[in-house]
Parts: sequence; structure tokens; C-alpha cells
Amino acid sequence: MAGSSFGNLFRVTTWGESHGRGIGVVVDGCPAGLPLCEEDIQVYLDRRKPGQSKYTTMRNEADKVEILSGVFEGKTTGTPISMVVWNQDQRSKDYGDIAVSYRPGHADYTYDAKYGFRDYRGGGRSSGRETTARVAAGAIAAKILKELGVTVTAYTKSLGNVVIEESRFDIAMREENPLNMPDNKAAEQAQELLNKKMSEMDSVGGVVECFVKGMPAGVGDPVFDKLDANLGKAIFSIGAVKAVEIGDGIKVTTLSGAEDNDGFLFDEENGVGKYSNHAGGILGGISDGSDIIVRASFKATPSIAQKQKTINHSRENIEIAIKGRHDPVIVPRAVVVVETMTAITLLDSLLSSMTSRMDAIKKFFGGTQ
Amino acid sequence: MAGSSFGNLFRVTTWGESHGRGIGVVVDGCPAGLPLCEEDIQVYLDRRKPGQSKYTTMRNEADKVEILSGVFEGKTTGTPISMVVWNQDQRSKDYGDIAVSYRPGHADYTYDAKYGFRDYRGGGRSSGRETTARVAAGAIAAKILKELGVTVTAYTKSLGNVVIEESRFDIAMREENPLNMPDNKAAEQAQELLNKKMSEMDSVGGVVECFVKGMPAGVGDPVFDKLDANLGKAIFSIGAVKAVEIGDGIKVTTLSGAEDNDGFLFDEENGVGKYSNHAGGILGGISDGSDIIVRASFKATPSIAQKQKTINHSRENIEIAIKGRHDPVIVPRAVVVVETMTAITLLDSLLSSMTSRMDAIKKFFGGTQ
Amino acid sequence: MAGSSFGNLFRVTTWGESHGRGIGVVVDGCPAGLPLCEEDIQVYLDRRKPGQSKYTTMRNEADKVEILSGVFEGKTTGTPISMVVWNQDQRSKDYGDIAVSYRPGHADYTYDAKYGFRDYRGGGRSSGRETTARVAAGAIAAKILKELGVTVTAYTKSLGNVVIEESRFDIAMREENPLNMPDNKAAEQAQELLNKKMSEMDSVGGVVECFVKGMPAGVGDPVFDKLDANLGKAIFSIGAVKAVEIGDGIKVTTLSGAEDNDGFLFDEENGVGKYSNHAGGILGGISDGSDIIVRASFKATPSIAQKQKTINHSRENIEIAIKGRHDPVIVPRAVVVVETMTAITLLDSLLSSMTSRMDAIKKFFGGTQ
Amino acid sequence: MAGSSFGNLFRVTTWGESHGRGIGVVVDGCPAGLPLCEEDIQVYLDRRKPGQSKYTTMRNEADKVEILSGVFEGKTTGTPISMVVWNQDQRSKDYGDIAVSYRPGHADYTYDAKYGFRDYRGGGRSSGRETTARVAAGAIAAKILKELGVTVTAYTKSLGNVVIEESRFDIAMREENPLNMPDNKAAEQAQELLNKKMSEMDSVGGVVECFVKGMPAGVGDPVFDKLDANLGKAIFSIGAVKAVEIGDGIKVTTLSGAEDNDGFLFDEENGVGKYSNHAGGILGGISDGSDIIVRASFKATPSIAQKQKTINHSRENIEIAIKGRHDPVIVPRAVVVVETMTAITLLDSLLSSMTSRMDAIKKFFGGTQ
Repeated sequence: MAGSSFGNLFRVTTWGESHGRGIGVVVDGCPAGLPLCEEDIQVYLDRRKPGQSKYTTMRNEADKVEILSGVFEGKTTGTPISMVVWNQDQRSKDYGDIAVSYRPGHADYTYDAKYGFRDYRGGGRSSGRETTARVAAGAIAAKILKELGVTVTAYTKSLGNVVIEESRFDIAMREENPLNMPDNKAAEQAQELLNKKMSEMDSVGGVVECFVKGMPAGVGDPVFDKLDANLGKAIFSIGAVKAVEIGDGIKVTTLSGAEDNDGFLFDEENGVGKYSNHAGGILGGISDGSDIIVRASFKATPSIAQKQKTINHSRENIEIAIKGRHDPVIVPRAVVVVETMTAITLLDSLLSSMTSRMDAIKKFFGGTQ
Repeated sequence: MAGSSFGNLFRVTTWGESHGRGIGVVVDGCPAGLPLCEEDIQVYLDRRKPGQSKYTTMRNEADKVEILSGVFEGKTTGTPISMVVWNQDQRSKDYGDIAVSYRPGHADYTYDAKYGFRDYRGGGRSSGRETTARVAAGAIAAKILKELGVTVTAYTKSLGNVVIEESRFDIAMREENPLNMPDNKAAEQAQELLNKKMSEMDSVGGVVECFVKGMPAGVGDPVFDKLDANLGKAIFSIGAVKAVEIGDGIKVTTLSGAEDNDGFLFDEENGVGKYSNHAGGILGGISDGSDIIVRASFKATPSIAQKQKTINHSRENIEIAIKGRHDPVIVPRAVVVVETMTAITLLDSLLSSMTSRMDAIKKFFGGTQ
Repeated sequence: MAGSSFGNLFRVTTWGESHGRGIGVVVDGCPAGLPLCEEDIQVYLDRRKPGQSKYTTMRNEADKVEILSGVFEGKTTGTPISMVVWNQDQRSKDYGDIAVSYRPGHADYTYDAKYGFRDYRGGGRSSGRETTARVAAGAIAAKILKELGVTVTAYTKSLGNVVIEESRFDIAMREENPLNMPDNKAAEQAQELLNKKMSEMDSVGGVVECFVKGMPAGVGDPVFDKLDANLGKAIFSIGAVKAVEIGDGIKVTTLSGAEDNDGFLFDEENGVGKYSNHAGGILGGISDGSDIIVRASFKATPSIAQKQKTINHSRENIEIAIKGRHDPVIVPRAVVVVETMTAITLLDSLLSSMTSRMDAIKKFFGGTQ
Repeated sequence: MAGSSFGNLFRVTTWGESHGRGIGVVVDGCPAGLPLCEEDIQVYLDRRKPGQSKYTTMRNEADKVEILSGVFEGKTTGTPISMVVWNQDQRSKDYGDIAVSYRPGHADYTYDAKYGFRDYRGGGRSSGRETTARVAAGAIAAKILKELGVTVTAYTKSLGNVVIEESRFDIAMREENPLNMPDNKAAEQAQELLNKKMSEMDSVGGVVECFVKGMPAGVGDPVFDKLDANLGKAIFSIGAVKAVEIGDGIKVTTLSGAEDNDGFLFDEENGVGKYSNHAGGILGGISDGSDIIVRASFKATPSIAQKQKTINHSRENIEIAIKGRHDPVIVPRAVVVVETMTAITLLDSLLSSMTSRMDAIKKFFGGTQ
């Protein structure tokens, strides 16, 4: 099926493979009149660029975005915005084992099972490099949200057993360490862990958390298009994610109703609020005006240099060792992917919420007459 | 937006409110020629029916399904199957506080924020009773899957801190206790916990786990319509779910690559398999032929008899106590909902996988000439 | 595929067969707060009800609509509105030839080719009776449009060779004759034609024209979701339609650019207008503020009492004569179907146009803070 | 809304403006294993290339396609196929009147009404140049259809009052004259007409007809996704189309049922057939195995050098004359656009028809085990 599109009113379609010509995206449904230039996109792409520390692949890619359509005289026109990041590292090389065997934890086998063959170069379409396109699209969504007073912020919450400490949380620190942790002390401990795992030719997983401020209450739909359901799909669509949580997430299973319920309160200054936010800003699939909180659990990078048992295309039981330099952890680079996928999802729901009420619709069209 | 539909080729649209005329569903895209009668649906509905134990609401509903269209001479015709469960318990009554105040943990406030007002009777559209419609639709999906050799099975894995023990796991026990736990000992402990919480006018959350056997490798799509992404959306669309996990789920964050990777193996008898199944049957968004495993974390029932702080429509800070008899836990009745939503999702992906390859398409159309 | 839904933000899903339990529809995405009662729907249904003249089938159906969900205290709640018209004329009878042979001009053969078998009772799902559901849904769309200043009006423009005369056009006459023609003189001539054809056991086709007043400029989308493209789909989805025209339609092929182009003009009182309206109110897929004009060409009723050559299920070449009393022309009853399908299409585009511009979006959300 | 995508299982998303960087398309859902190279696409693009005769714009564009993704080792991989045609003619120039006034018959005014401003260079997104992307996508659809035994062929049926003569019809002649008419004599007459209109600084409209051979019976869906409804949308989405007809089209309104009905017949050699094909191969929205016939009425090119009355951005009533060399008729170049849009639509319905029946589904999955 055609599964490379996401969103309804703000719809994103990605294309491209790891070692093909490039990675691209078409953003359809972007409102007209948004000031937009390549630099707006580039700052997001730079956050997932490889080669920034010893904890990321050395692949040498500038990842410069080009806007090919949909922007005129510095503003979006309302028509599709096509963007591309050309692949520079396309040199022909020997893919050896990868071309004819199935790497554990990768999609090699499942692609072959589905399509009959696959583009094996660097994982082809299943490569994490596809997320470049999502980040480019999400940068636009984030810019629109910001104009509407909504901000989306993600960070590394844990790597292996190293978890950031609430008391040391400082979002400014996110840029100060190569792991995108808002806690430099935890980042130091995590680097020790990574160094150890790298020396063991092994890899590490972790958690990305994302919070959203400024989302008005009343966004999202009952039943299947709940805001959390759409977020769940968005985040699970990122490779290597094995769990998604909203608010207190998995912890709610051991809380009682009295513990978990967030009572509402009202005061003149802040309007309607809640005494707590176990719910993570969503009730019945609809935003309640509190911070929206979503968490993604990423597995460890499956590409490891250790020998692993697997099979090849001839159905022989073999051992392989993945060559080359791979990220020992993908979590830090996934931070901006979670952030932008969240932005895309929220913007789409926010736009569709404009049609929820007759009174607002009448006011909208009355105002244009 | 129109958010009451789910699925693409096999598409489900639900309607109805807790205390309205009834709850219904239209299933569009069901293949023609499937033997189908109301009893096929009823066995699934009976599994979520209220009033079956002291741990479920006493609401007296037979929940008998009627098929209104799409079946002729005992077989599906390929056209929409409309089903309805009429509400019997519609007596007019005094909704008191609920009508004019916002219950903590419920969607009362968010519905008002979105729509300007709401059907407050029993939670209206936000009631868990809406899942009746999903179960009816999913019963059809499950029947089709079974004809194709795919079975979907869910059960209560934990309630509060009481978790089933792997060594005692026996799926046959699921029907032997009122909590749908495949471990009677754990079920006993859980009942003690529930009794205690009920006496405290409090409630309990828990985990539903679902496993799928027989799904062929190669089903699901790369990128946004990953099988796990669609499952994530399906499960998060069930009220009260705050986390969804695939395979090892949240645990993967503390596993290394060497621990988490599932090596492939081959033997003549079983074909391609894996040494382990941390991945839960999905790699790169596509099924790998192993069991698919998905877990949902449910929060405790928000309706509790304890006094809770909240606000009313006049923005006054008040206290309310939810009257009436409510399920002290929704997990056991949610088991069949998770099972059927999983079935709907998998069937939809399975059908769309028929168009993945030119050779299979050519064979398909060649065969009909 | 799941083909029984139409629309994106305002989405309609129909179900039911001619001689099944009933015909129904789920309207999802209807804005909250619209005053709505069954009488609002019934006035539209009464316009397509059978048995109103000797030119319509004698099938005795009251076609009373019931609203099953989505309305509370007289207003739409924003959640799905389920409506049903129960079939009264379900008596078991001998369907004879129809059950085992393929009526020319009907969908009997194509349904069998697609699904392997069919509900042959009264045409099953392919019956024009399915449009009952569309009319019910479209009545809601029309009511919303009216609140926004947009009116949709259809009428019979021609039956066979009898065409209404521009100079006698009076929309009030539409209700004065049984053929829904806004020209009583033409209606008389058409009745003569119908009487003649009925005596010959034959039937007649014709044209329905629909005009829309008050649609603001700027609604519709470039490229695939052009307003005329969506209208084209909507109207072609009505059974027996073999051509759809916008504005001057087929006539444009013999006009030169100088003749066909509508120059723009401006005056203070009326704002932007056009010297002519060959385009029928749509340019580049987007409304231009002039009247939108759409026309549908209906073929003659295929059910005729004359003997016709065809085949049966055993692939024998046979002759059949369709028994029973059938409409000698479907055009007059199709008028309200064209009108309501147009309303559904326009409303959906109008709602989605709310998200076209950043400035309007910012104003919208600014206004709610 | 996001309106630049078409199709469900085989989904096409176009981007680009007339004088921007290029025109592109992403084809998602193309089955894996189809041999595909740029030359397969180029032969279709060459059929709509400008500058081929004095009846087309002199714009000098090679219109060479590049495939950017989705093809590996000469075969489609099943993942998105991104294609681009770079614009060569991007020189900055003075757009004069066009930038600040509204050309009659063009989308200038409606784009401004919708988006608040527009890319005025060569019509921007509303330019016929966008169809380059559709042709590229449709070339792939046509190739797949051909492998399944289905061929799609379009031609110019009329220009102004010059209509091809049935008795002289010879599809081979389509390539022999610059107007794509399968009747060289008519083509000569049409050229005279065009020469005359060009000398008058005027332009001409016409009709494109398309026939499809080899489509099996049983493709298409009842109700909203009727094959003719989807074709209607596809063809109306092409700029300048003001009418779409299926089979006898508009003529059916003056035929009686006895004249219009196509009786079925059967013989051992040809299987099920019909005595005539007034229906154009579709009954009840589903293919009947006969040739599918669709016709599109195009208006005359709105860009004419004559002076025309209109308004400018300041709402002043002015006169403009469109400068530059424009196609005096767009019909010949639209032939391949109609052909490829038809191919896309039919392929999408054909793929979805694979899931219509349980027996076929069971056989499909049984065969892969």
C-alpha cells in the first residue's frame, strides 16, 4: 500500500533511500503566507546530522536542504513544498554480507519477504536516513505552531540505565552535551556507558521525552483519531521505537484512580487548570490545555560489530559481523525526529479543530464578507 | 474532523452514545462470500458485556447485536455491513453533578472545550460503551483472519501490582476467572486487590497483552504505515490506554544490541525463524513471521466514589463524588477490545499486502482469466 | 475496497439494500451546535419518496427518517449522526428471472463478476434506493450551508427531447408539477412524452441542473481536489449518470477563447464580479464567487417491460421482460439527490478552505484565547 | 487542504510550478519488481512536450525526466518512486500585467482569493505544466496495466466544430499529424481552423476521447468509489475540462431505455459480451468487461492576444492583452494527460479489486505458504 504519507490537512510524503540520489519530502496543505526559507529547515536538520560526535556515524554528509517548490518571494504559497537533501556519500562499494544475508534486528528479511528483493545499500528505504525528510517537514510544522503559541521540545531522557535526574533538569543543557540530555551530569555518566559498550562492540537504547506547551484545550478527536492515537502512530512510525507513552504512561497501571485522576481547578489569572498532569495533557483523545507529554522507547542500534548468528539468502545458517562505523546509540539523533513528528501530528489536529463548532465557522466566514 | 473511521481497505465507522438509542458500526470493504451470522458477533460481544461479575458495572444490558445490511443468504455480500446494539438502559434520570461539572480523569471538560457542549448522559460518546461497536466489527475481522490461519488472543496480564506468572500461564484459564487472567492464582490475588480498592471507593489499572499467531512475514508498510504504527494508533484509540508496547517494549531501553537482536535461523521443517522474539514479530514495520506481541497499559477507572476536587461549568472550584456503581477496573472488559482492534488492524494490512509485488499481481489476474 | 464513504472533513458513509432491513447513513464531522431535528431531514426525503405520481414506482414507503445518534437537546454534538430509514416493503416474494439472469443496463452482472454472488432483491445495494441515505446526509450539509449564506438548488432541465425554456424559467414552478421542472409548459410536454413511452413499455432519460448561490470565492483546491473534480465524482457516483458538466460544459468545445473567457469587473456595490459565467463559478478548481453550475445527464430507466435479450447465470442467451411497476424516468426523483450530493461536496470544501491561510488561522486561534 | 495527491493503493503526489525549479511527482504504492527505466517515462513525456509544432507554445523545454528513488537494479522496489523534470526556462523576466491583474479564464483571481497571493510566473501551480508530473506517474501505471493485458488509448476527437469521422478512424494516424487526431483529413481541416483562429488572436477548444481495452469485469466499487466516479474526478482534475462523459455520455438523455440498454450475450469463444456498448464498459460503477470509454471536453486556451476586459489588484477595471506565444489549443497536448490519468485511476481500482472476495483471498495466501 501507499504508506509513505502522514497527516490529513497537513500531509507529508517522504521518498528516498540511504544510498540513492537523495532523501526528499513533499509537504501538502501548508497554509499560505508563512515566511519560510531554507535556513528555517536547516537548523532542524543540523540537529540530526551525522558526524557531530564520536557517538554518531562518521558518514560525511552536509545534509543541506533545498526547497524546490511552494515558496514564492519568501512566503509559502499554499501549494506543495517539495524539499530534497541530496546524498553525497553514494560511492559504489562492496556491500558484501549485507547484500546477501539478513542482519538481526534490521528490516532486511522483512523487506525481502514483502517485496521479493530490496535495495540493500545502507538499508535502502529502511534506513534511519529517511527521517531526514520528516525533520524537514516537521520544521515547517514547528514554525507554524510557534506562530500560534505552541512549542514542542524533546530531549534524551535516558540511555541504558542512565536516567536524567528531575532535580538537575535544565533544557538549556540539551545543547551542551553530545547526547541531547538536559542534565550534563547524566550525560557524562551516559558517555561512560557508551564508551564501555563501544569497546565491547555493542550498543545502547534509551528514551526520548517530548513536551508541548501552549496547545489550547479542545484539539483532537474522539474515537479513532484521538490526539494520543495519532501521536502513537507518529512516534511508532519512527524506526526502533518499541513503546510509546503518554503522560504517566506505563506507570498508570499501578496507580489507583484516586492517585491518577487530575482534579480541575480554576483561578482568574490562569483560567482552567489541573492540580496534576498524570494524563499528559490529553483526556478522551482531546487536549485539556495542560502540557502534552509523550515518551518513546528506542531499542539499541542493531548494527553491532560483534559476531551474530543469522541466515543468508540461500537459507544457510551463518555468522555475520556488521562492518563499518555505526552509531552506538541512535537516541540523541532521534530527539529531533520525535520533536518534529510530534509537531506534524499536533498541527494537523489543530487545523482540523477549526471545523468543530458551528459558531466558530459562522464567525470565520462572516469575517471574510 | 471526521474521526470515527478506522482502516483503509477494511474500514470501520462507529456511532452512538452511552445513553442514546444505541451503539452501531458500519464495516465497509469486508470481502464477499464470508459465512456470517449474528452469533459470530455475539460471542465476542458477550465477552465485554456488563454485569458478569461484581467487578463490572451492574448496568443491565443484553447487548444483542443485529445485522442490518451486507449479509445475504448467510454470506457477506461485499457491501457495507451495518450492525447495531440497541441501548436498553435509557431511562431518563437525574444526572446531577455530572451534567454541570467536570469529572477528573474523564473527557467532560475536553468535549466542552472542543464542541461547546456535550451529551453528558453516561459520558455520551466518550463512554467505553462505544467499544461495543469496535468489538462487533473486530469479530468479523477475527473470523476472516482465522480463515487465513491467523489467530489473535488477548488477556489480562496485570492488575495493579499483581502480574501473571510466566510459569503458570495457561490461556484456557482466561475463561475460568472473572478477570480474564490466564493464571488463576494471580486472578485470586487480583480479586483481593480489587475487593480492597472497592472498599476504599477506589479503582485499579492494569495491562492487557495480545499475541498473534500465523501472520505471514511481509505484511505492513515501511515508513508511516508500519504495522506497529498502525497497531499503536489502534490501541491508543481505546479509552484509558496510556502506553503501548510491541515485543519487549519499554524493556528494550536497557538492553544492549547484542541482547536485543533476534538472530535468524533456518531449518527445513519450520522454514525461517528466529532464536528469540524481542522484536515482537515486527521489523522495520513489517511482520517477520514470528508471533506479534502488543501490550496496552490502562489507567484505573476514573469514576470513583471518593470525593474529588474539580470545577463546574460556572468555573467554581467544587468537590464531587461519582455516584452509581462503576467498574472498579476496566481491564478485564478491555481484553476483547484490544483483541478485536488488533484483528482489524492486521486484517487491513494483510489485505493491502496483496498488492506488494508484480509477480503476485500477475498471477492473481492471470488466474481469473 | 471500502467505497461507501464520501468526503473528508464532512464524511458520509451509507449502508443498506433495497429490500434489506433499511437504508442508513453515518455523518461524521458535522460541526457541533447546529440545531437539527428529524423534520429537517424529512422535507428532503419527501422530495425523493416513491409513489407521488404516476411517473414514479408505486412502492409504498413512508421513508420516515430516524436520528439514532449525534444530536442532543436539539443540537448536533459534533459526533457521528447516524440515521436510518427502515424498509417497509420487505415482503418475501418471488424474484423469478431477476435472481438468475442479468438485466440489461443494470449492475446484476458486474456485481456477480466482482463479488461472486449478489443480493438480487430489488437490485440490492445497486438500487437507487441507496440514495435515500445520501439525501438524509445532504439535508444536513444543505442546512449548514444555508446558515453560511450558501444555497443549492436543482431541477429537471430536460426529459428526452423536452427542454425547459429559459424565458419561462421559474423555480417556484418546480413544486407545481410532478417532474420538478421549473417550467410548467415544458412539464406538460414532458408528461405527454412519458405517457407515450409508458404505453410503449419504454422509458426516458434527462438532465438535472443545479446552481449554487453565495459560495465565497477561494474555495476548492488546485490539482486533484479541484472543486469541479470533487463535484464530478459526487455526481458521477449517482447511478445512471453518464455525463457531468460544469458551467457551459460540453458547449465550450465549440466556443473560442474570446467567446468563452469571462472578463472580471469590479464595482463598489457588488465587489468583484464577471461579465459572464461560462465557467460556472469555478476557475482552476477554485470558486470565483459567481454561481456554481453543474449538470448531470441521466440515462433512461433500464427497467422496462419490453422483452430484452440477455443471458442468465447458466450463460444461456435468453429474453426477459422486467415485471412490476418501475419509474418510467428517474430524473425527477434524482433532482434532490443531485442537490444534496452537491451540498455535501461544497460543504466539505468550504470547511477545508478554513485552513488555507496563515493570517486567518492566526486570527482564528487568537480569537479563542 | 492537501489536494495534490490522487489514488489510494497507487497514490500519486505532484509538486512544482511553471517557472520554479521543476515539476515533480512521488508515486507511492507501486508494486515491486516492475522493470522500469527513465526511457519508459520519457516516451510519454515526449508526447506532451512543448515546441513540437506551430500549434504549441515555443517554450523550449527538453522535459527530461530523472528517477530519484524507488528503482534498484532496473526494477521498482515497492517504495516511493520520486521523479523530477527540471525547468530550464526559468529566466527572470518582466511579468508585467500578469503579476498585478487577473487574466480572464485563468486561476489568477481564485488563487488570490484562496491564498492571499500567488506565484504569478507563468501561472505558477495552476499552469498546465503541472500535468508533466501526472504523465510521468501515469506512464508507470500504463506500463503495469499493459503487463496485465489492459491498454489505454486517447486521441483528439474534435477541435472546435471539426470532428473526426468514424469511417476514417485509424489510430495509427494519431502520430501522423500534429493534432493527435486518428483521422488525417479531419486534422487538416482542424489545422485550417487553428490557422484562422491564430490570425484572429483567438483560440480553440475540443474533445479528447479515451478507450480502454482488456479491463476484466468486476473492477470498481459500488456507491461513491464507482469506477466512473473516480474517472470523473480524475479527468475533471485536468485544467480546462468542463465536461466528462462515459460511453454515450450526454446523448443518453435523448435515448429511451430500449435504445440505451446493452443486452448481454454469451458465446463459447468470447465468453460474456454485450450486443452494444452504450454504457461505455461500466455498469453500477463496476467494469463489465467491454471497452471503457471516457470523453473530456476542453475549453479553448484562455490565453489570447486579443484585448480583454478585466480588473487588476487595485480593483480597477482595465483591459489586458496576453503577451507571448501560447498554445492556440491545448487539446492535442492534453491527449496523453487524459490517457495517463485514466491509467492511474484504473490501476488503482484494479489493485483494490483484489480484495473483493474471500475465495480469491484464501487462494492468494494459500499460494504463498
